Amino acid sequence: MATLNENYLKLKAGYLFPEIGRRSQAFADAHPDAQIIKMGIGDVVRGIPRSVADAMKEACEELAHDETFRGYPPGQGYDFLLEAIAKHDFGGRNVQIDPSEIFLSDGAKCDSANIQEIFGLDNIVAMTDPVYPVYCDSNVMAGRTGEADAAGRYAGLVYLPCLEEAGFSPPLPETHVDVIYLCSPNNPTGAVMSRQDLSGWIDYARTEGSVIIFDAAYEAYITDDSIPHSIYELEGAREVAIEMRSYSKTAGFTGVRCGYTVVPKQLQIAAADGSQHSLHSLWSRRQSTKYNGVSYPVQRGAAACYTDEGKAAVRELVDFYLANAAIMRQRLTAAGYTVFGGDNAPYLWITCPEGVDSWGFFDRLLNEAHVVSTPGAGFGAAGEGYLRLSAFQHRDLVDEAMRRISAL
Amino acid sequence: MATLNENYLKLKAGYLFPEIGRRSQAFADAHPDAQIIKMGIGDVVRGIPRSVADAMKEACEELAHDETFRGYPPGQGYDFLLEAIAKHDFGGRNVQIDPSEIFLSDGAKCDSANIQEIFGLDNIVAMTDPVYPVYCDSNVMAGRTGEADAAGRYAGLVYLPCLEEAGFSPPLPETHVDVIYLCSPNNPTGAVMSRQDLSGWIDYARTEGSVIIFDAAYEAYITDDSIPHSIYELEGAREVAIEMRSYSKTAGFTGVRCGYTVVPKQLQIAAADGSQHSLHSLWSRRQSTKYNGVSYPVQRGAAACYTDEGKAAVRELVDFYLANAAIMRQRLTAAGYTVFGGDNAPYLWITCPEGVDSWGFFDRLLNEAHVVSTPGAGFGAAGEGYLRLSAFQHRDLVDEAMRRISAL
Repeated sequence: MATLNENYLKLKAGYLFPEIGRRSQAFADAHPDAQIIKMGIGDVVRGIPRSVADAMKEACEELAHDETFRGYPPGQGYDFLLEAIAKHDFGGRNVQIDPSEIFLSDGAKCDSANIQEIFGLDNIVAMTDPVYPVYCDSNVMAGRTGEADAAGRYAGLVYLPCLEEAGFSPPLPETHVDVIYLCSPNNPTGAVMSRQDLSGWIDYARTEGSVIIFDAAYEAYITDDSIPHSIYELEGAREVAIEMRSYSKTAGFTGVRCGYTVVPKQLQIAAADGSQHSLHSLWSRRQSTKYNGVSYPVQRGAAACYTDEGKAAVRELVDFYLANAAIMRQRLTAAGYTVFGGDNAPYLWITCPEGVDSWGFFDRLLNEAHVVSTPGAGFGAAGEGYLRLSAFQHRDLVDEAMRRISAL
Repeated sequence: MATLNENYLKLKAGYLFPEIGRRSQAFADAHPDAQIIKMGIGDVVRGIPRSVADAMKEACEELAHDETFRGYPPGQGYDFLLEAIAKHDFGGRNVQIDPSEIFLSDGAKCDSANIQEIFGLDNIVAMTDPVYPVYCDSNVMAGRTGEADAAGRYAGLVYLPCLEEAGFSPPLPETHVDVIYLCSPNNPTGAVMSRQDLSGWIDYARTEGSVIIFDAAYEAYITDDSIPHSIYELEGAREVAIEMRSYSKTAGFTGVRCGYTVVPKQLQIAAADGSQHSLHSLWSRRQSTKYNGVSYPVQRGAAACYTDEGKAAVRELVDFYLANAAIMRQRLTAAGYTVFGGDNAPYLWITCPEGVDSWGFFDRLLNEAHVVSTPGAGFGAAGEGYLRLSAFQHRDLVDEAMRRISAL
C-alpha cells in the first residue's frame, strides 16, 4: 500500500495566500457591487517595460524559425543573462560574483522552497517570526519539524521573534542553529537589516558553521544608502551565504517568472565522513536533475532589464510603488495608525487597533473598506497584532483605499 | 555545523546528459574542424509553430500595458489552457478529465522529479531498467535508496528489467511495490505499452494499493491505433494513476518550457491513522507552496497548439521527426544493425556491435562518425549493450549521420 508524506498533515490550514483569496472571493460573491481593492498578495499591477516586452517578442520570433530556434536552455542560464547579472546586480556595487555562481530559475519562491533539499534533515533551522511562509512550510514538508502548537509554531524550528522594540530586526539565536533564513528588505515587516546587523549574522555563521539563506527579492526598494543590497557586500559572506533575487518586483515579472540564486564556490560543508563538499556542486546537481531551465524569451526579457532603457524603466516602476508606500504611510499615520516599513520596502506593517486581532482587522478592512490586506498572524505567531499592506497597486486605487480606511 | 543531504553522495557520476555534453565538448575542443551531429540529448531542432509564436508575442504585448497586464498566474494554470487540455488531449479520446485535475508546470521533467515528494519515504519504488534517470535520481536524493552497486543499481529500488526477448515491456514485479514509474512511448527504448500491458499494471496497482506514475511525454508519436495515448483510456486508472505530459516534443517547447500533470480526484491513499487523503490535495499543496505557475506568454503559446492551425503545425512537426526515425531505421538496418523503436517514438534503440559496450559504442560514434548518441548504460544496467539515437534533427543531418555510420 502506497503511503503519503505524513509531514504534509502537519501543515496548518492552507498556504496563506490561497486562504486570503478564498475569504476575498466569498466577500465578493456576497457583495457583487463592492469595489474591492487588493493590497494583500504582493502582486504588481503595472505593465512590464516596453524594451523588456520587445526583447521577449523578438525571442519568440527567433524560436519560430529553424535557423534561429533554441532548444533546452543551458542548465544555469544563458551566458548573456548570467554575465549581465554579475556585472550590473553585483559588479555595480563592487561585489565580485562569477557568472558561474548564478543559477537562474523561474522565481525566488521556488528557489527558497527548494534550497533546503541540499541540506541534511538533521539541521536545526532558524527563521524569523513573522516570516515568509514558504521557508517554514518547505521545511515542514521535508520533515525537519514536529507538530505545530496552538500558536502555529512547529516543534524543532528555532523562531527569531522580530519585535517592534527592536525595530523588527531578528535577534541572534540563543542556541546553536545550522541554517538561517533572512530576508531584507523584509517580507512582511518592511524592515531592513543594517551592515552591522548583517555583519553580526555573518560572524555568527562563521563561528557556528552555519549557512545563511539570504532572500534579497526586495533589494531594489532600498532608499537608504547605508543599507546593503547584497549580503556579499559584507566581508566573509561568500563562505557562509546563499542569496536569492527576483525580477517580480523590479520589472513586474510576477506573471513572467524569473529569479536567481547565487551559490558562491567557497561555500563548503563537511559530510559525515569528513569530506568537504561545495554547496554549489550540490545545488548544481539538484537543478540539473530536477529542473530544466528558464524559458528563452523570459531570459531575453530579464537581460533587457540591464540596458540603459531597461534600467530606467525598472527604476521608474520601483519609484512608483515607493511613492505609493509613502502616500500610504502619510495617510495611515494621519488617520491615527502606527505604521512601520514602506520606506525601504513595498510593504507597510501596521499595528492593529486595540482589542482587534490580525484576522479580525483583515476582516474589518475587507467588510468595511473593501480592502484586501494580509493578516500578520498569517506570517507567524509574532505577526499577531499587525497587518501587512502592499504598495503594489494603481495610484487611484491607493488613494481610494486610504480614503476608505481613514473614514472607518 | 550545517550538514548536507548525504543522499546526494550516493549519486553515481553526473546526471547523464551533462556527462554526454562534457565528452562531446572535449571532442569538439580537440577536433575544431569536425562537424559534430547531435543525436544524443532528445532536443528538438525545428522552430515552434507560427501561430504559437504569434500567441506568445501577443501575450508579451499584453503584459506591457497596465490595462492588460497580468501578474501571478492561477496556481494550476489559466482556465483557457486547462480547458483546452481537457477537451483536446483527453476529451478527443473519450477520456473525461476535469480541468481542475490538471496542474500546469514548466515541464514534465520537473514534475516527474517532484512528484515523489508527496509520498512517504517508506514506499517501495519500482522503475524500469533502462529508465529515464530523473525517476531514479530524484528518489535517491530523497533518501529512498541505499548505495548503488557496481552496475549502478541502488539498494532499495525494485528494477523491472525490460528485455529484448519481451519486446522491452516491463514485467510485473515479483514482490510488492508501492509506487511504479512507467513511460510509454518509452524513453529510451522507444517501445510502447499495449492496452493489455497497461491493463495488467492497473490491475496490479488496484490489488496492491500501489500508485502508477505514467509519463506520456511522447504520446504524440504513437502511430499504432491500438496503443493507448493516455493511461486513463483504461478502466480503473483514475483510482491508481498520475499522468504527465509535455509540449517539448510536440510544439518544440524544449526552450519554451511547459508541461502538465494530471492527478485525478479519485486517487486516494490512507495515512497511518487510517484517514483518507487525495493525492490531488497533496500535490496542490506542494505546488502552491513551492511553485508559482507558468509564464503567461508560455501558457498562451501552449493554448495556441489546440487551434486548427496549431494542431496541424504540431502534427507536421511530429510527422517530420517520425519520418526521420523511419529513415534511420531503414539505413541502420541496411547497415547491419539491429534496431528497435522509432515507429511509435522519436527514439531508436540499437544493439551495440559484438564485443563493444555502450560507452564504447558512444565513443566510437563520436570519434569516428562525429555523431553524438546516448549510451544505453546511462539509463541503467539493463541498458548495457544498447545505444539510443534521437530522431530530433534536421533531415540533411540525419542523412549525413546515417551515411557516416553506414560507412564505419
